[in-house]
Amino acid sequence: SGLVLVKNPHLDLMEEDVLYHLDLGTKTHNLPAMFGDIKFVCVGGSPNRMRAFAQFMQRELGLAGDGEDVADICAGSDRYAMYRAGPVLSVSHGMGIPSISIMLHELIKLLHHAKCRDVTIIRIGTSGGLGIEPGSVVITDTAVDSSFQPRFEQVVLDDVVVRSTELDKDLAEELLACSRDIPDFPTLIGHTMCTYDFYEGQGRLDGALCSFSREKKLEYLRRAYDAGVRNIEMESTAFAALCGLCGLRGESHLFHLL
Amino acid sequence: SGLVLVKNPHLDLMEEDVLYHLDLGTKTHNLPAMFGDIKFVCVGGSPNRMRAFAQFMQRELGLAGDGEDVADICAGSDRYAMYRAGPVLSVSHGMGIPSISIMLHELIKLLHHAKCRDVTIIRIGTSGGLGIEPGSVVITDTAVDSSFQPRFEQVVLDDVVVRSTELDKDLAEELLACSRDIPDFPTLIGHTMCTYDFYEGQGRLDGALCSFSREKKLEYLRRAYDAGVRNIEMESTAFAALCGLCGLRGESHLFHLL
Repeated sequence: SGLVLVKNPHLDLMEEDVLYHLDLGTKTHNLPAMFGDIKFVCVGGSPNRMRAFAQFMQRELGLAGDGEDVADICAGSDRYAMYRAGPVLSVSHGMGIPSISIMLHELIKLLHHAKCRDVTIIRIGTSGGLGIEPGSVVITDTAVDSSFQPRFEQVVLDDVVVRSTELDKDLAEELLACSRDIPDFPTLIGHTMCTYDFYEGQGRLDGALCSFSREKKLEYLRRAYDAGVRNIEMESTAFAALCGLCGLRGESHLFHLL
Repeated sequence: SGLVLVKNPHLDLMEEDVLYHLDLGTKTHNLPAMFGDIKFVCVGGSPNRMRAFAQFMQRELGLAGDGEDVADICAGSDRYAMYRAGPVLSVSHGMGIPSISIMLHELIKLLHHAKCRDVTIIRIGTSGGLGIEPGSVVITDTAVDSSFQPRFEQVVLDDVVVRSTELDKDLAEELLACSRDIPDFPTLIGHTMCTYDFYEGQGRLDGALCSFSREKKLEYLRRAYDAGVRNIEMESTAFAALCGLCGLRGESHLFHLL
């Protein structure tokens, strides 16, 4: 049917669903009217960057009047920012798996309540590249954890549930095809490694704590490269697992800055 | 000596230390002049709330001119917000362990470069209470994980390092003593449980995914209560582990909202 799925039998029994961190809700807002025609959701860490992306989409789609700005739909909360440009929703998610997970739970319920159909979700953001040219775009085929495994371990109460982190292969190919129309934009498909920590978890030598040598770091990154990892960030496994379970066609499309 | 410690031999070899997510650095800013007299750091999730807290401290310390506002020291970055009021620094950290960890790595290096001495750090924020009166303040003695263990498992490259999450017991008692001067403010000392997930991890029945029954949730929360847990949030184990290792006198001081 193309509808966004929620997998929670308790939701049907609730009179009202408050999306706390988005400052939206089923009784306070007409979600089908506000969001029913959304077809694309782009998510990224930084609120300023997601506003700039919405403004860019407005111009690209010919929707912008001169000097017209996009309004933050979640202005009542400083946890996340949300903008729309036509059928495109642009949402910030902060840094790390817990932060993106809260946003995705509430976004998925939002799209479900709004009765959206055939929604594609793309995470755009910066990442650290591995053995690739600076400025490259990595389109993620599979998100892997710090042991290079395609899995997301979710603690549910005190049980650990293991979830798949495969992303939409056809969408990855479509995005790669788009890149061929843009000159000087090195783009590749590869695995993206997701860590819980920016400093010690990604082998950085400049955190407040660092107990490993440069050699140990390089050996680890070499093993990651050999396992197919082409970039490193902090949200992709949770993104892939949650979107996959809820019927969103998902892709992670990451810019390599370093 | 009371100095803030960094435990990273590589840092001494670096010509410049850029605190990326704070938009500060050792070459671009005179950190000892800007921060050398800081004695207290208060951290919390929401940037708006940390600005309000700095304004409150300004008034409490008699530092505020009329209508004078506090300036965001990290205005060049939208990842975190930082304000100061006299010897008090007020910093936001976003939601979840990865987000607070990035901020703490850079904050600890900041305090180290600034040669601050005898710094006390307190996390203030909201949390879900367990079997306590709504509106209570829980002063954390020990942060525990979702298995109620006083530990923080940090992935360093692909090794798991287990760190202690004890907090400063004397500081907890001092804070508890302060609460006695304020009427109608129920305050207690207890364990704080830290989870990686707000919905499935904390037993909420209203996420996009939920595979457990109300009975299973209540059974889990009952076990948490029996283990000494009085509230639940998403940053305390990483906060306790990092601050403890770096010689900061730390305490987590949480308001129970629900």
